[in-house]
Amino acid sequence: MNKILSLAFLLISSSVLAQSEDETNIKRIFNQALQNGKSYEMLEHLTTKIGARLSGSEGAEKAVIWSEKVMKDFGFDSVWLQPVMVPNWVRGKKEVAKIMSGKKSPIEVNVCALGGSIGTGAKGIEAQVIEVKKLEELTVLGSEKIKGKIIFFNRPMDPTHINTFAAYGGAGDQRRAGASEAAKYGAVGVVVRSLGSNLEDYPHTGNMSYTPDVPKIPAIAISTRHAELLSASLKENGNVKFYFETYCEMLPDVQSYNVIGELKGSKFPDEFIVVGGHLDSWDLGQGAHDDGAGCVQSIEVLRILKELRLKPNRTIRAVMFMNEENGLRGGREYARQAELKKEKHIAAMESDRGGFTPRGFTMSGTDEQKAKIRSWKSLLEPYGLADMSQPGGGADIGPLAGQGTTLIGYLPDSQRYFNYHHTSEDTFDKVDKRELELGAASMAALTYLIDKYGLK
Amino acid sequence: MNKILSLAFLLISSSVLAQSEDETNIKRIFNQALQNGKSYEMLEHLTTKIGARLSGSEGAEKAVIWSEKVMKDFGFDSVWLQPVMVPNWVRGKKEVAKIMSGKKSPIEVNVCALGGSIGTGAKGIEAQVIEVKKLEELTVLGSEKIKGKIIFFNRPMDPTHINTFAAYGGAGDQRRAGASEAAKYGAVGVVVRSLGSNLEDYPHTGNMSYTPDVPKIPAIAISTRHAELLSASLKENGNVKFYFETYCEMLPDVQSYNVIGELKGSKFPDEFIVVGGHLDSWDLGQGAHDDGAGCVQSIEVLRILKELRLKPNRTIRAVMFMNEENGLRGGREYARQAELKKEKHIAAMESDRGGFTPRGFTMSGTDEQKAKIRSWKSLLEPYGLADMSQPGGGADIGPLAGQGTTLIGYLPDSQRYFNYHHTSEDTFDKVDKRELELGAASMAALTYLIDKYGLK
Repeated sequence: MNKILSLAFLLISSSVLAQSEDETNIKRIFNQALQNGKSYEMLEHLTTKIGARLSGSEGAEKAVIWSEKVMKDFGFDSVWLQPVMVPNWVRGKKEVAKIMSGKKSPIEVNVCALGGSIGTGAKGIEAQVIEVKKLEELTVLGSEKIKGKIIFFNRPMDPTHINTFAAYGGAGDQRRAGASEAAKYGAVGVVVRSLGSNLEDYPHTGNMSYTPDVPKIPAIAISTRHAELLSASLKENGNVKFYFETYCEMLPDVQSYNVIGELKGSKFPDEFIVVGGHLDSWDLGQGAHDDGAGCVQSIEVLRILKELRLKPNRTIRAVMFMNEENGLRGGREYARQAELKKEKHIAAMESDRGGFTPRGFTMSGTDEQKAKIRSWKSLLEPYGLADMSQPGGGADIGPLAGQGTTLIGYLPDSQRYFNYHHTSEDTFDKVDKRELELGAASMAALTYLIDKYGLK
Repeated sequence: MNKILSLAFLLISSSVLAQSEDETNIKRIFNQALQNGKSYEMLEHLTTKIGARLSGSEGAEKAVIWSEKVMKDFGFDSVWLQPVMVPNWVRGKKEVAKIMSGKKSPIEVNVCALGGSIGTGAKGIEAQVIEVKKLEELTVLGSEKIKGKIIFFNRPMDPTHINTFAAYGGAGDQRRAGASEAAKYGAVGVVVRSLGSNLEDYPHTGNMSYTPDVPKIPAIAISTRHAELLSASLKENGNVKFYFETYCEMLPDVQSYNVIGELKGSKFPDEFIVVGGHLDSWDLGQGAHDDGAGCVQSIEVLRILKELRLKPNRTIRAVMFMNEENGLRGGREYARQAELKKEKHIAAMESDRGGFTPRGFTMSGTDEQKAKIRSWKSLLEPYGLADMSQPGGGADIGPLAGQGTTLIGYLPDSQRYFNYHHTSEDTFDKVDKRELELGAASMAALTYLIDKYGLK
């Protein structure tokens, strides 16, 4: 055997060996998650013992204390709180809303205030309703027709998108910007069709924001089924009025925290890999899929690596970000501190698409970085992780892009996410144990590979 | 441009055009299923208005009449019933079972008779219990230890299989063959750990059969949680007894039917493509995932093709097979009739893995046939249909293998199937609308491609 041949042979052998070690370790990771996983019982506690965790709420505070304790109990190398001031929007008393058709008695409908909205107070708002499908219709209608009215944004999520996040993206402007856009023409309030995949009885909340120097008007979401009812009522009688009262308000900022757990790297302790989810949730359900799942999966990644003695080369952090839902203060503060401390983050991975069955990962980074991750496809595909085609990371890790960090999103199946998202139905019982565990293992497997091989 | 070049150009253009037409039509198929689909409302009727449909039951009879009417109402070219005699096993009065630990008061546990089992009648059976994990342990124990006892088969489904059907396959011998194997050594009854993925309170039924010339003894399934309890009780006290009474029995065969709907082929009417599910279900739930989903998806395939005027070249049949669960009489009769009438079936596709999000298709056929189907991967992958690696078709279409038919299984995600399979929990509310619709569209898309291009 000549030198070149024997070198080639050596390379092939070591590559086969390396692959085999990776296969073995990834299988061990999945076995650990499925046989002795802790993600499901962590999620049960977070969602059913603590429950809703809107920034500034008592639930959020309890969740901070709990997740710090959990990570300390698992014996991670360091666990600490990173202070961050967060907004404190409160819903107040339950909302009331009615379709007032004059002759008939009023019909109560299911609504909720949108996050960030001002409230109407006990006096409520009553006005005629104009239904639109798109923000651009407001320009055509103009002040004359809109002044003094309630604008009803009724564009559904497009069911023909296979990825439901695309459908969500395509309908989200109504919720986020609808109030200020309507207020520009003198509207007194807005009712927004809930961003849900199906016809349901419960409304979906979510954040909205006001454009500076435009009058603030109250904004609510209406259940998709009652959006259909309101629309039908308007077709029957164009003079139908709508009444609603909401008691929400924005209180002064309060102190809160990102919660961080760390396994110290043995070879490159100054290179960081983050896995994270957001600890805050909306106030209506238990924040199970959004994003209790991502939090417990992130803790589980570190627990699995530690349990299996897969000692990392780089420093790996589980970060429970605070305030993704209505401010992103936690994500911004984490990136700011990383910058200040010159902590070099080579990769950050977020799980914020629910605890559903694995499909793959989204990625934003250089072509080289993405190619490196895709080169591991054969190791990940046996676990249902076949889709690595889409761009994206996650809201909380987004601010790390400034330092060139490769951003990765855990990509579970999207079909059921918008059944529950931001609603009273986002509860523990909607999360399947195996699906949650497979997600945690998927994240741990990719973390293991990035840690071992880097992204260059 | 020379002749060869221009021919190559022509070929490339027509291939691009062809691909684009296929892409368009497959998109239309998915849009139809997601925007104007009928599968979900069909399933709601079948499961909540008709309900359980064990062969020989009133529910099964109603389901035959209903599915014939549905397909006639959709205006399929022909709709008819294919007679088949089916077994008529009935559960009778609700089962009773108790762990009798002597000193303490008896603990009631959740059990159900296994399909095909004889009953104990009102006198019940009470005996000491021997726990085993594998059938082979019986040989080691021998008649001396087993005679007069109840054998408790307690091997769980292995959670480390990513595909839960592999875990099911690996534990199924206990249920199917446990009773006769234990009876060979003089056991008086068997208790089998339910074939479920998780710890649950409800038992999973399913078929068992007796080996000829071996005494028939009663067989029940116990919920996984109570299997754990029974096992713990035995560890604490080896003399624990178990009591159970069951009232099931096998009555004489009754007349039933496969229900068949057909769209006649325009070019090759004598070549057949079958899409099917099984209309019968176990008696405990509503047969929603198993296999109401597969039935309504199969009807939906023909409805979509007809609605979109994608007139098939070949004759396409939706077949609601009767008696998959405890006899396979419908599948056998369908194949026998096809043979008798010399109906050349080029492909048969079954959906019997639940109404979950699409993953791909399983296939059994020649390498050429499988390669042809895999050549369409780029058309199917955008819809989550990435996995075409596994062999297999479906139980009901299996008997068509004799005439060389390519057998195809619709492959949805497997993670939640064995939460519900064969239990009181297999109900309509466990089926997600979009997941069900995507399955129907997946089957319609592949049917469209097979019909258009054949499998040679």
